[in-house]
Amino acid sequence: MALYRVKVYISYREGILDPQGVAVEKAAHSLGFEKVSNVRVGKFITMNVEAESEEEVKKEIEEMAKRFLVNPVIEEYSYEIEEVK
Amino acid sequence: MALYRVKVYISYREGILDPQGVAVEKAAHSLGFEKVSNVRVGKFITMNVEAESEEEVKKEIEEMAKRFLVNPVIEEYSYEIEEVK
Repeated sequence: MALYRVKVYISYREGILDPQGVAVEKAAHSLGFEKVSNVRVGKFITMNVEAESEEEVKKEIEEMAKRFLVNPVIEEYSYEIEEVK
Repeated sequence: MALYRVKVYISYREGILDPQGVAVEKAAHSLGFEKVSNVRVGKFITMNVEAESEEEVKKEIEEMAKRFLVNPVIEEYSYEIEEVK
């Protein structure tokens, strides 16, 4: 068994309204950061996964994404896996 | 002026209770993903920034982090900047 460190990035799909992103953008503009645009706020999930191989971790993550982490209708995701030495 | 794509990753500092992370971990375990541990849920913010240089973007991001994006008492952050060609 090896230990893997996983980072999952979840964001709204393009075209999906993101009220938190709109709020952050407005705050930025009203504080003088006017060259900021297209702000989107998503989720950044980190976790440890014990597995026999990176391939197994990949499977776990994709299965978790499908089962409960990601709503594919409105969200998209990507991830990174790194073995912890 | 150039356009830069910025990704900001915000997470709770170690030792700070993260109820959303606890909830995701419990959900994972109860669905049979038992080898998952240490789940933490943070924010993943993407935005475009117009600036003269990457150095200027860096300054903007760090200033925004300080002013309103990040609560340094309980959160830490990192970021990536990429020029949009």
